Amino acid sequence: MAGKKPSGVLTPVLTPFNSDYSVSRPRFLKHCRALIEQDVGLAVFGTNSEANSLSVAEKRHLLDVLADEGLPTDRMMPGTGCCAITDSVELTRHAVDLGCAGVLMLPPFYYKGVSDEGLYRNYASIIDAIGDDRLKIYLYHIPPVSQVGISLNLIERLLKDYPGAIAGIKDSSGDWNNTAAMLKEFQPAGFDVFAGSEVFLLRTLRHGGAGCITATGNVNAAAIARLAATWRDDDAGADEQQSALDGVRGIFQKYPMIPAMKSAIAWQAQDPAWAVLRPPLVELTADQTQALRQDLSAASFQIQNAQALAHADA
Amino acid sequence: MAGKKPSGVLTPVLTPFNSDYSVSRPRFLKHCRALIEQDVGLAVFGTNSEANSLSVAEKRHLLDVLADEGLPTDRMMPGTGCCAITDSVELTRHAVDLGCAGVLMLPPFYYKGVSDEGLYRNYASIIDAIGDDRLKIYLYHIPPVSQVGISLNLIERLLKDYPGAIAGIKDSSGDWNNTAAMLKEFQPAGFDVFAGSEVFLLRTLRHGGAGCITATGNVNAAAIARLAATWRDDDAGADEQQSALDGVRGIFQKYPMIPAMKSAIAWQAQDPAWAVLRPPLVELTADQTQALRQDLSAASFQIQNAQALAHADA
Repeated sequence: MAGKKPSGVLTPVLTPFNSDYSVSRPRFLKHCRALIEQDVGLAVFGTNSEANSLSVAEKRHLLDVLADEGLPTDRMMPGTGCCAITDSVELTRHAVDLGCAGVLMLPPFYYKGVSDEGLYRNYASIIDAIGDDRLKIYLYHIPPVSQVGISLNLIERLLKDYPGAIAGIKDSSGDWNNTAAMLKEFQPAGFDVFAGSEVFLLRTLRHGGAGCITATGNVNAAAIARLAATWRDDDAGADEQQSALDGVRGIFQKYPMIPAMKSAIAWQAQDPAWAVLRPPLVELTADQTQALRQDLSAASFQIQNAQALAHADA
Repeated sequence: MAGKKPSGVLTPVLTPFNSDYSVSRPRFLKHCRALIEQDVGLAVFGTNSEANSLSVAEKRHLLDVLADEGLPTDRMMPGTGCCAITDSVELTRHAVDLGCAGVLMLPPFYYKGVSDEGLYRNYASIIDAIGDDRLKIYLYHIPPVSQVGISLNLIERLLKDYPGAIAGIKDSSGDWNNTAAMLKEFQPAGFDVFAGSEVFLLRTLRHGGAGCITATGNVNAAAIARLAATWRDDDAGADEQQSALDGVRGIFQKYPMIPAMKSAIAWQAQDPAWAVLRPPLVELTADQTQALRQDLSAASFQIQNAQALAHADA
């Protein structure tokens, strides 16, 4: 995890499955390559990756596949936060050993109403167990799903005790005031704040933040990356770019996001297997699928990497 | 999983840790033996076992230890429901191979607001993957913690398609009306309903239910088991027994339950290491510890297996 810290746009990479729910490695590889070519980093094993529907062994194996196939590990920020410290340590250590730029770490999320002291001990135990200066942890704050959040007090305490290992945060609270507070309090000290959606990308960048880690990066990669690359340019039309991104996001947000993105890829890459989700998630209904296609057509929206994804061998 | 179906009282066995958060196998074994001697079955790896703070490998190993040391696997109902189907299959298959009486299976609990269809596919996929007639699944309904529940419609569909594998439920909703509905709808068909707390034990038994699977079984084992064994006897004073159980439960419920039970064992077994919890859970504060001891002393409450637990080698 040496070298330049990640910035700009990363996406929680969708995990393609075969009809028997096994991971489709060829589709996964093609998708990761297409994202990198569009300058979007690989936050594999995020919420939108159905990462918690994969075992630790499956995630270790997929990281190995990506590294073996030459995908750049310095553009990877795998999700490694599990309910069990022992799992988090195993997966995080593997990511560090492979040279990943960082790890995105959920708090343990089974028990609700846990204390900041308990969450502090979770992260501290993991950092101490790994004991590697290359470790860069990005905290993952997504209370709407995990129901367990990362408070400003917890960040402050972790940063004080582990300034080298605590590298930043993804804020998926959906609450701009929370992101703004993190940007004000911690970004100046080099704690990189990533918005959890591109709808906050321009605001985050203008407030000194690092970028965004966003689900829709799976389907609108190049356009989101372009805003992150050009927002300071006088002639870039940053606000207009942001509006266009919001429009696309708005379409996908009308549906359950993960199945909607998979459905769109399945359609535009002409590869029906892309629509498969692992339980407990389910694919869009036929009516939802039709409505999504109409919405995308009406907006003339085309997934820019769709051709690169087409006709993957399972 | 052949033979008589479990009934009566089981407890989600507390998992004792060393100060470095590794599992204390000697303490775990002593505690399991003491519970069996008091006629309480071993629902190891439940919520109160901090099971989701253990990796699948740790749980497999602990099951092996119990079996190797001669603990009766036909009195065991390990928790094997994980977020990832692949993990649930691995752990459940291991339990079946060891001859466990059944498994207690949480739904996948990371994603919230999932559909009954998605939960059905989760359970169906696991049952199909294991493909073993010995498999007996007890569904685990604990919405206050998991935030993902088991509906009556889901039970009905699973029972229809998998009448052999779907064996019963633990209802930890805390809602008697829900337990009563399950008892009415499904118990007559042999779907065994266990209350999730002994406060509902007598009511559950009087409505034809199988018993209870209760946290407090860790500290009040013999008394709870006695009610389950004697409730039909005219001279047993079942209602008075129930009231006494409720009184003890009420003490522990004043505090965070898991640390309170561990604190009580640490105190009465004179073994301070018993108070350790794995993050994100934390031990009682000094004030809470003192208050709990005063409450237990005022009630003249003594953990009946405390001496058997004393002075375990770590």
